[in-house]
Parts: sequence; C-alpha cells; structure tokens
Amino acid sequence: MKKVEAVIRHFKLEEVKDALTEIGVQGMTVSEVRGFGRQKGHKEQYRGAEYTVDFLPKAKMEVIVPDDQVKAVVDTILESARTGQIGDGKIFVMPVEDIIRIRTGEAGDTAL
Amino acid sequence: MKKVEAVIRHFKLEEVKDALTEIGVQGMTVSEVRGFGRQKGHKEQYRGAEYTVDFLPKAKMEVIVPDDQVKAVVDTILESARTGQIGDGKIFVMPVEDIIRIRTGEAGDTAL
Amino acid sequence: MKKVEAVIRHFKLEEVKDALTEIGVQGMTVSEVRGFGRQKGHKEQYRGAEYTVDFLPKAKMEVIVPDDQVKAVVDTILESARTGQIGDGKIFVMPVEDIIRIRTGEAGDTAL
Ligand SMILES: Nc1ncnc2c1ncn2[C@@H]1O[C@H](COP(=O)(O)OP(=O)(O)OP(=O)(O)O)[C@@H](O)[C@H]1O
Ligand SMILES: Nc1ncnc2c1ncn2[C@@H]1O[C@H](COP(=O)(O)OP(=O)(O)OP(=O)(O)O)[C@@H](O)[C@H]1O
Ligand SMILES: Nc1ncnc2c1ncn2[C@@H]1O[C@H](COP(=O)(O)OP(=O)(O)OP(=O)(O)O)[C@@H](O)[C@H]1O
Ligand SMILES: [Mg+2]
Ligand SMILES: [Mg+2]
Ligand SMILES: [Mg+2]
Repeated sequence: MKKVEAVIRHFKLEEVKDALTEIGVQGMTVSEVRGFGRQKGHKEQYRGAEYTVDFLPKAKMEVIVPDDQVKAVVDTILESARTGQIGDGKIFVMPVEDIIRIRTGEAGDTAL
Repeated sequence: MKKVEAVIRHFKLEEVKDALTEIGVQGMTVSEVRGFGRQKGHKEQYRGAEYTVDFLPKAKMEVIVPDDQVKAVVDTILESARTGQIGDGKIFVMPVEDIIRIRTGEAGDTAL
Repeated sequence: MKKVEAVIRHFKLEEVKDALTEIGVQGMTVSEVRGFGRQKGHKEQYRGAEYTVDFLPKAKMEVIVPDDQVKAVVDTILESARTGQIGDGKIFVMPVEDIIRIRTGEAGDTAL
C-alpha cells in the first residue's frame, strides 16, 4: 500500500475528487495547509489576484491505495489538478505498512 | 519507529487519548481533517443527524512510537475509537526513519 | 527523498522558514495542529502564560528534500526552532518514494 499525498489548488478539489472516484478510489482525507514551492518571492495567481508567493493556502489530499493503483491515481491527479500555471501543486508517494478498518478490525488491502 | 495515524470521530478523541496515555504513549499530534470512506453517496450518522457522505469532519491523530509498541497502540485505538457504526475510521501504519527532540538534539528511540 | 516533518512553536515559524530558505530549501507545507509531548499533565509556557499541558497549538512543517539535504535541514531546524524550554518540538524523518510536479509531470529529484 502507498499513501499518495497531493497539495493542490482549492478550487480543483471537487474535480480531483470526482476524477478519483471515477477510477475506483474509495476513500480520501483532506486538510487545509499553506505552503510555497520554487517561486517563493515571485508572483503567483490566487483567486484572480497576483500575490508575492510566501505562504499560500492549498488543499492537501491523502489517498491510501493498493500498490497497483498508484500509477492510475497519480495520473488522474495530474490531469484533473493541472491548470498549466505555476503553483499547480505537488504529489508525494509514501510507503504505508498496514491499514486497519476500525469498525471491523480488518487489516491490509481488504481494509481499503 | 513507526507513525500510527488514525482518522477517527471527533467525539472519540478524548477517550482514545486517555486510553493511549494509559498504555504509556508519551506524545501525540492532532489535526482537523475531512474525508470519506467506502460509503460515499450513502448515509452516515454525524451528531445524531443523517448525512449523505461526501466529506465529513474527522480528527486525525498521529502517534510516533517504537516498533514494539505498535501493536498495543493499534489495539488500543481499535477498542477506544470503535462504535460499531459505519464511519468509525481507519488506522494507517507508516515507517519513520528518525526522530529528534528539538530542545536537546537527542535522536532515535530515546527522543520519543 | 525524505519528508522532514517538524512540529514546532508558532512564533518560530518565520525564523525556521527563513533559515531553511537560506540553505536552499525550495518548498514547504505548513498546517495547524495541536499536541503534547512527555510533560502531559505538567506545566508548559505558551504566550507568556503557564498551562497544564494537554493539547497545545503547534505548527507542523513538512519539507520534502533529496537525501543529501536531510542532515542540513534537520540541523537548521534544530538551531532555528530551539528556545531551550520544554515544548520546543520534535522532528520526524520519513521515506518518500516519489514526487511529481503537477504542472509539468516531472518526477523525482528534478521535481523538487
Ligand atoms: N519541497 C516541498 N516540500 C513540501 N511541500 C512542498 C514542496 N514543494 C512544494 N510543496 C507544496 O506544494 C505546493 C505547491 O507547490 P508548487 O506547485 O508551487 O511547486 P513548484 O515546484 O514551485 O512547481 P511550479 O513551478 O509549477 O510552481 C506548495 O504551496 C507547498 O505546499
Ligand atoms: N483509502 C483512504 N485513504 C485516505 N483516507 C481514508 C481512506 N479511507 C478512509 N479514509 C479516512 O478515514 C475516514 C473514515 O473512513 P471510514 O471509517 O468511513 O472507512 P470505511 O472503510 O468506509 O469503513 P466503514 O465501512 O466502517 O465506514 C474517512 O472520512 C477518511 O478521512
Ligand atoms: N511521540 C509523538 N508522536 C506524535 N507527535 C509527538 C510526539 N511527541 C511529541 N509530539 C508532537 O511534538 C510537539 C512538541 O513536543 P515536545 O517538544 O513537548 O516533546 P518532548 O519530547 O516532550 O520534549 P521536551 O522535553 O523538550 O518538551 C507535541 O505538542 C506534539 O504535537
Ligand atoms: Mg511554484
Ligand atoms: Mg465508511
Ligand atoms: Mg514536552
């Protein structure tokens, strides 16, 4: 299993969620973050206005999936989260050793 | 060391924290998230009302522990976070390579 | 690549960010968390007042960097986040298997 973590633009969240649901993703967790990438100190668009990039609000999405779904999930996020403008975000793939469903105690892939 | 990450119901946070403290857990980090699991589009109870599950607020708890405490931590979360209703949450176990206490610079298990 | 995750005092965030930028860190993500460490039930200073430590607000900073930058990043956080008082925070180092820039699709170290 892997955790695919994506820091994306807020207004793309629904679109990314719908695209992931369509390819069979069954769960995800979202939180509010702020951050910056390579253009710190330069300009980035946010809600139609230009800001000097220091910390900008972004949405962080975490999706835990079986190994054989990682590529599809990454490709789907790439397509649905992209605008082509700087600041579109980043995807991080991290190892997950186990997952357990609290209600049933099931573990491993069947708990996803 | 491992990070045990649990996404649970808010009203279970105190109970889970107390149960973990009782088995010797010395630290934890909590944040506000929203998410959904397998029943997306179906109904789940939240504060006595029924909602169509899209994104529901949950509490995310992160506990870094030595390897030999992982099983006890997972079992304790399972017991204390469970209601038996859908939406009880998920536990994810992830590898941690190092941990450092900022005040002292101590690293590894003694920094926990 | 590694994720260096640090839970630090809020008022240290700017100082830590500036110190990391100075050593060449190109991106980071910050979120609001609350937590406790070993002194749970004892006293810790927060904004000049003393609190019994249960959950205190902290800033969580995530920095994904190439392997050969991990030591510099950890040392820089240690120096810039430290006050010497209990509650200065913790650093966790975790493995990252891949990273992708959404705008361009670039993967691996060049996507950082
Ligand atoms: N190295 C990093 N570590 C942690 N978070 C990062 C890192 N780089 C980027 N982020 C997060 O991703 C968000 C979006 O970054 P951004 O899209 O600007 O990346 P970028 O590499 O500068 O790409 P682009 O050139 O397309 O802007 C940031 O606001 C930050 O939250
Ligand atoms: N695959 C996943 N990736 C990331 N987060 C997830 C995943 N599955 C669940 N979550 C998080 O866990 C929370 C609780 O999920 P939930 O308990 O509904 O899981 P479930 O598998 O549907 O189990 P149940 O059948 O008991 O409802 C979600 O709101 C979401 O934040
Ligand atoms: N084992 C842990 N797991 C998860 N988060 C932790 C853990 N220990 C500490 N934290 C997080 O780090 C924050 C700061 O912890 P703290 O600096 O008090 O650690 P400590 O080990 O008690 O060190 P000190 O003796 O200097 O106070 C906590 O509020 C919590 O968010
Ligand atoms: Mg950028
Ligand atoms: Mg569910
Ligand atoms: Mg402490």
